[in-house]
Amino acid sequence: MPTTLPTDPAANGAATVLKAAASAGANVCFANPGTTEMPIVSALDSMPGLRAVLGLHENVCTGAADGYARIAGKAALTLLHLGPGLANGLANLHNARRAHSPVVNLVGDHTSRHLAYDAPLTSDIAALARTVGSVRTARHRETLAEDLVAAVASATHRPGVASLVVPADLQQATWTGDPLDPDPVTCPPALVPDDRVAEVAEIVEKHGRDVVLLLGGPALSRTAQLAAGRVAAATGATLLAETFPARAERGGGLPGVDRLPYFPEAAVRALEGRQVVLAGAPDPVAYFGYAGMPSRLAPEHLVHRLSGPGQDGEHALVALAERLGGDLPGDDRAQAGAEERAGDRAGNPAAPGPALPPASQPLDGRSVGAALAALLPAGAIVSIEGGTCGYPFFTASAAAPAHTCLTNTGGAIGQGLPVALGAALAAPDRPVVALQSDGSGLYTAQALWSMAREHCDVVVLVAANHAYGVLRTELGRHGDPDPGPQARALTSLGEPRLSWTDLAHGLGVPASRATTVGELATRFTAARATPGPHLIEMAL
Amino acid sequence: MPTTLPTDPAANGAATVLKAAASAGANVCFANPGTTEMPIVSALDSMPGLRAVLGLHENVCTGAADGYARIAGKAALTLLHLGPGLANGLANLHNARRAHSPVVNLVGDHTSRHLAYDAPLTSDIAALARTVGSVRTARHRETLAEDLVAAVASATHRPGVASLVVPADLQQATWTGDPLDPDPVTCPPALVPDDRVAEVAEIVEKHGRDVVLLLGGPALSRTAQLAAGRVAAATGATLLAETFPARAERGGGLPGVDRLPYFPEAAVRALEGRQVVLAGAPDPVAYFGYAGMPSRLAPEHLVHRLSGPGQDGEHALVALAERLGGDLPGDDRAQAGAEERAGDRAGNPAAPGPALPPASQPLDGRSVGAALAALLPAGAIVSIEGGTCGYPFFTASAAAPAHTCLTNTGGAIGQGLPVALGAALAAPDRPVVALQSDGSGLYTAQALWSMAREHCDVVVLVAANHAYGVLRTELGRHGDPDPGPQARALTSLGEPRLSWTDLAHGLGVPASRATTVGELATRFTAARATPGPHLIEMAL
Repeated sequence: MPTTLPTDPAANGAATVLKAAASAGANVCFANPGTTEMPIVSALDSMPGLRAVLGLHENVCTGAADGYARIAGKAALTLLHLGPGLANGLANLHNARRAHSPVVNLVGDHTSRHLAYDAPLTSDIAALARTVGSVRTARHRETLAEDLVAAVASATHRPGVASLVVPADLQQATWTGDPLDPDPVTCPPALVPDDRVAEVAEIVEKHGRDVVLLLGGPALSRTAQLAAGRVAAATGATLLAETFPARAERGGGLPGVDRLPYFPEAAVRALEGRQVVLAGAPDPVAYFGYAGMPSRLAPEHLVHRLSGPGQDGEHALVALAERLGGDLPGDDRAQAGAEERAGDRAGNPAAPGPALPPASQPLDGRSVGAALAALLPAGAIVSIEGGTCGYPFFTASAAAPAHTCLTNTGGAIGQGLPVALGAALAAPDRPVVALQSDGSGLYTAQALWSMAREHCDVVVLVAANHAYGVLRTELGRHGDPDPGPQARALTSLGEPRLSWTDLAHGLGVPASRATTVGELATRFTAARATPGPHLIEMAL
Repeated sequence: MPTTLPTDPAANGAATVLKAAASAGANVCFANPGTTEMPIVSALDSMPGLRAVLGLHENVCTGAADGYARIAGKAALTLLHLGPGLANGLANLHNARRAHSPVVNLVGDHTSRHLAYDAPLTSDIAALARTVGSVRTARHRETLAEDLVAAVASATHRPGVASLVVPADLQQATWTGDPLDPDPVTCPPALVPDDRVAEVAEIVEKHGRDVVLLLGGPALSRTAQLAAGRVAAATGATLLAETFPARAERGGGLPGVDRLPYFPEAAVRALEGRQVVLAGAPDPVAYFGYAGMPSRLAPEHLVHRLSGPGQDGEHALVALAERLGGDLPGDDRAQAGAEERAGDRAGNPAAPGPALPPASQPLDGRSVGAALAALLPAGAIVSIEGGTCGYPFFTASAAAPAHTCLTNTGGAIGQGLPVALGAALAAPDRPVVALQSDGSGLYTAQALWSMAREHCDVVVLVAANHAYGVLRTELGRHGDPDPGPQARALTSLGEPRLSWTDLAHGLGVPASRATTVGELATRFTAARATPGPHLIEMAL
């Protein structure tokens, strides 16, 4: 009983939007559509260059788009249903914004004439979208392709989140005058001017060991870190990474660049009395404001910027290294140099990796971090969410084979599993590990189902300590080290006890449990040997 | 290592806010706090009149607050962490707004001075909050109590959603000049003027059988429906309920008021050529705009309003019935009258209830609807989400013992389980059933965990058809009855197959499975006999 006039799905507005997206270089669409997006859903099947991936919650879609964009280095699409669908995905869009990931949201809206009637699902979509990036609402059938390309361009150039609202009537409308193939949207990052590099070189040379080079964004590529390593070797400067990088290459002979500590006391100590040179990293500010602690982790006059997030930090660091000279020390240099020449991101298999802790050792943050560093296959991507195991792993993984770390950039929890999903789809030939805390993992556990449906080779390691651990710490910092029953209950995931193996089974993902390093190693190896996702609940 | 100055948790701003909330009548707080809400979390334990309930996702918290408010008839609090926490809860706040449920969000924010530094979790909280209701940001310690009372008043008087943003420094600050006990905020609904009732009476009398009385909001109380039944008996008018009532009393001898159909063709037919009198219901407009269908389901000049959502529709209908006379026909009248006098919401146990379909019958929307109507205990609350079983149950339940139905008011899916949680906490003496479709249930399955933690007597019936069924229908309506593989994949929850029993076990809730009416009846009876929640996966 179709009451709408069926339009040729290859010629309607929905097809125009998708065709323009594919031509502009956005080939994957993480979708949870509804009635107002049906023309787009129908048109997908006449669009071979565009792969649709269903997420069972919009925050899975937006987080996966972020993960995809981080690894693929180009824009990913989402397809979301009206204001509530966009609202559900906002938390991971917030994270994508902080990651400077190009994500383009296609958001359906009511047929234009219907908006005046305030039907139940009507809401202010543009106001929601504006909180995470740019937004445009399509108004004319004739300019739909341009609207889409402008959204991709906005997401790519900022880079960040762009939303395009497409009313249902425009999706259905035909028009024969479509421009066919927009060029792929690209955006080479802006070069840092030579005189800026020269100014920074002077500072680094003058202050030597009293310099911290704080690396972030594109300055955490392999090439950038190798260049930073040369600078450190020549000048004695200390290298640190931003606390929550969108994408950091690690291991395989790269210098051991640890992260700026999370808590402000330790971060202030790490930067104290130093000149702080920012390469791609944001201004060093505390994650939260605490009474008695400064918001800035270093005095403003001691902070210098080599490159910002939209700039080519890699090129700037190479230019800095060329000015300051310096070789990578010892083994690091030989190994890293060899890799660079061979273009082998897997690292030198002959180099000694980190040792696996004793098999009988129980699991805690430190033993899990060390074990995963030892078990990590070359070329892996690790999506890290949560501090319990995340910090120890990052530290330990400097000695692991070459791999890529993705972290939670914006602090909205529920990002680790979706990002792992998106990363796995962007790099189907690379093993993916999600190192996930339990509290945050529960926010978007539906991502497990999409991993199973898409046959993603992801090993999900859940750190099951059955608590919002960081909040227990924060209660203590707030002067409440012995919280009352309500405060305890609000920071506990026990009573009842969650079972991640049952949850995974429910979502179609095989799962097992580990309580010691030996069990973890056995399960991890078995999971790696089986195609598709596998979850290991680590009893901490 | 507390770096903040511990303040007396009974005298700081957090305590002021909570004390004012409890005094204003808001005694339950559905919470998922973070670092910026720790002072409020700490203060909860010195606030015996305020119960905190942890939700493992903010959309559980906001949906539960909505459910609580619908049953308790007064404001419920949420406690949310910054912009992303609020964003996560927006979908069910959208539904709460459409339900006219008084919900007050307490949203923490960074310490005021820290906002300038654009730390990772900084975002435009007020812009998000404005999309669902009123918002105020606390600026001064001295006026915190007033701010809170104003938020409760805003939520109660509109009624709807109100948000209060409380920066962390204000939560921590002490001040000894607090006013102690604001009065409870109440808001008797506005009376409909007599001359309006008289005008409507004239229309109803004149047009008789050509009148549809469309009941919604407060006009779906028992008293209001009994009055509407008298009007129908006297005039021949047809009674219909709005399609998605926030709270509708049903059964136990009430007139059989079915809902206005969802799809516009059927809804237009139901209203065609009739005078439409709105008692508490919104203007009858189509849920979505379809090409070739009007947005209005009835011409504007035939629509008359007796009472709006903020008005006392119950009183207006009683007044209308007094003008038009009429008795309830036969048994209905006797039974309903008896109940009214006895104040017994459980209905007349002697009246014949609906019959259970044959035990061997397989489960589908119709057999589930009929079976639940037959099995329903008197006094039950039923949270309905999803059409597959929801519509047939509502129709069948007219003959069931007296119960209360809660539906998804705003169309943002993921509302049924949280609303059931909130309803169960508001009415611990009443049995609660969640009749839940699988696709929408997956949005907020974390609510199951809170039901287990709070020992709520909820029977969750999941209609597992492994598809976004309504979208398959909508694809057909859009002219795509035989969708391609991508469109099929985007509307299917199969591959892999979800297991709701495993999901429930993972979240700490006992679960079973039923494939026939007989199995459903057995499991339902067993679930009812055991304290705490139980989930039954119904294989459709």
